[in-house]
Amino acid sequence: MGRPVVSLLTDFGLKDSYVAEMKAVILSLCPRASLVDITHEVEPFNLRAAAYLLSRAAPWFPRGTVHLAIVDPGVGGGRKPLIVEAEGAVFVGPDNGILLPAARKLGLKRVYEIRSEKLPKRFTEVFHGRDIFAPTAARLACGVKPSSLGVETSEFVEEVIPQAKILEGKIRGEIVYADRFGNLVTNIGRKLLEAFNVKPGSLLKVSFKERKALTVRFLQAYSQAEVGELLTLIGSWGTLEVSANQAKASEKLKVGVGEELWVEKA
Amino acid sequence: MGRPVVSLLTDFGLKDSYVAEMKAVILSLCPRASLVDITHEVEPFNLRAAAYLLSRAAPWFPRGTVHLAIVDPGVGGGRKPLIVEAEGAVFVGPDNGILLPAARKLGLKRVYEIRSEKLPKRFTEVFHGRDIFAPTAARLACGVKPSSLGVETSEFVEEVIPQAKILEGKIRGEIVYADRFGNLVTNIGRKLLEAFNVKPGSLLKVSFKERKALTVRFLQAYSQAEVGELLTLIGSWGTLEVSANQAKASEKLKVGVGEELWVEKA
Amino acid sequence: MGRPVVSLLTDFGLKDSYVAEMKAVILSLCPRASLVDITHEVEPFNLRAAAYLLSRAAPWFPRGTVHLAIVDPGVGGGRKPLIVEAEGAVFVGPDNGILLPAARKLGLKRVYEIRSEKLPKRFTEVFHGRDIFAPTAARLACGVKPSSLGVETSEFVEEVIPQAKILEGKIRGEIVYADRFGNLVTNIGRKLLEAFNVKPGSLLKVSFKERKALTVRFLQAYSQAEVGELLTLIGSWGTLEVSANQAKASEKLKVGVGEELWVEKA
Repeated sequence: MGRPVVSLLTDFGLKDSYVAEMKAVILSLCPRASLVDITHEVEPFNLRAAAYLLSRAAPWFPRGTVHLAIVDPGVGGGRKPLIVEAEGAVFVGPDNGILLPAARKLGLKRVYEIRSEKLPKRFTEVFHGRDIFAPTAARLACGVKPSSLGVETSEFVEEVIPQAKILEGKIRGEIVYADRFGNLVTNIGRKLLEAFNVKPGSLLKVSFKERKALTVRFLQAYSQAEVGELLTLIGSWGTLEVSANQAKASEKLKVGVGEELWVEKA
Repeated sequence: MGRPVVSLLTDFGLKDSYVAEMKAVILSLCPRASLVDITHEVEPFNLRAAAYLLSRAAPWFPRGTVHLAIVDPGVGGGRKPLIVEAEGAVFVGPDNGILLPAARKLGLKRVYEIRSEKLPKRFTEVFHGRDIFAPTAARLACGVKPSSLGVETSEFVEEVIPQAKILEGKIRGEIVYADRFGNLVTNIGRKLLEAFNVKPGSLLKVSFKERKALTVRFLQAYSQAEVGELLTLIGSWGTLEVSANQAKASEKLKVGVGEELWVEKA
Repeated sequence: MGRPVVSLLTDFGLKDSYVAEMKAVILSLCPRASLVDITHEVEPFNLRAAAYLLSRAAPWFPRGTVHLAIVDPGVGGGRKPLIVEAEGAVFVGPDNGILLPAARKLGLKRVYEIRSEKLPKRFTEVFHGRDIFAPTAARLACGVKPSSLGVETSEFVEEVIPQAKILEGKIRGEIVYADRFGNLVTNIGRKLLEAFNVKPGSLLKVSFKERKALTVRFLQAYSQAEVGELLTLIGSWGTLEVSANQAKASEKLKVGVGEELWVEKA
């Protein structure tokens, strides 16, 4: 009845025509598809950022969405092309871990290796996004079953986002993403904080490696802090963020993705 | 009959997944919506630029378009969430002045405060764009009346773009926007210039604060000037622009948004 | 039956509202159009990059696509506004050479000068993209024939992309584009390489002006080289690229668009 949604997430940028070529292929094979960009500005080859952004965005899409995600340093090498079937969505992309966190969040069902010999055109070894993944996504969007396009497999690269945990009475986590506003998104979920009885208004002690610990307020909205004040809150991904009101925490703290942090109640 | 258009204007950038999450919410609630980005590259928290860009773009959209505009430094604080009903269009966004200039240009009808308790899901205090404004825009696009989603109000923040005027025999205006090409867009409309009998070919004296006055030609097209020459013309927003042919006036003059200028016939 | 596709390629960037104003005009005149951005990040006034990107992307679009391409340093001057009819597609834009390489790739049929006096609204001399080209594209998308909107012409600016050739026993080519990944795309097609019996695994000697010659492998995929290694391959446009695996050849070699190169078998 409705138009099938195909989302696109890549590290291709918007300066070149690569994304447009993929969209053109999709609309050629499935003209009624409705295309939505998640982002094309993933830092080149940054698998962790791709996995994070896809797992953030996917749960908000309509049931039946096909998510095409391509950050693919191994294109033309041995890595498998995958279809990952999840509850209410299908993911298409390379087998390097970027699809699994999103699929697990929705409920992982089955993983298929794409049989690229069944694709219509001769394909290049330089642009599988256009030549293998886009036609696969288009067919899935127009109703072809994953099992017609691939062979089920149980071997695939697992998640690339690390888990936070409690160690020596503190939460040890990691910065998994820094957004445009300089918010530092961690992998520390709401439950870990509840285990420490952290509540709005609590003071948290946050330590980064080889650096003085900070004591900052745990709040519910950026604007509850003074302009420029560092704060923590549960961000829109559902995890702890280290932020500053109308300022960039990433610049204030000179902290970036991959950096470890330790959190405890002050 | 046709598909309802929803435009989006934010300062969220395209690197993160925030815009995609809003689009996903809109398509989940109103699958036949047609989404058009105005821009997501508003300088973070720059209300004046947001108001300018929305008022430029809105008049060109089809009747019935829903414009979703979110530059929202006060998210999670006390500012109201608004629906602004205008002639042939509806605007959705925070109550900080960014919606009014566009609505007044089309013909302001009524302003409503969104009753967010009527929204379907629990919402966060960190991302009202996705959790309050996007669902509201989706419902409006699919035919729900503003009066079902909000309560009429007469208290709202007024325009953030200043007016040009005549003072001491000169036009005093302000740079309200600098575009990608370095064109300096002012708030000086065609009528003020006509009052000074400015015509194509006239010479204008343009003065910025604490700086030598320029004498530049008033032309009808950028390409009527020599390559690199400074010129003035009525730009595509209908106001005076200080420009340079195939060069950046903003860089040549080292002038930016908010700077005052005085214009008279040379 | 399906929705007509209109592609857009400009140097307008995404920070301003110019692209959105064109889309709004298109959807006002042809509400069922499906809009696909090729790119809006062409370097301002770079005709060669525009021609390259359009000729790359156009062949992948569905039959019947209308391509709107605007890089237009001569707006408001004497240059003609064109409709270029090709096999399976129509191109709309200024007469400065950006449309022809794509049209010739698909099969050039006829070229028309747009009769802008037949357009509905008064138009400005500063923004023909919105005022002349977008309404023309919209009408073509909704089924109006090119001959109703323009007058056939045999005078138009020809291609802006130079041809590679064999000189003194070497291939002399040029860098026509550098993409986000630092791949240096040349104008040296597959056939010229076959004439030199270049095969996967061959070593090529590549010389840039006033610089030591490089000896690099000719491969089939970026990932066949070591990480950081310079290589050559046939890229996704079908021409020779000088690249580096997961690194930027443009930065390693400090070479950019327009630079001449000489290629021979090592």
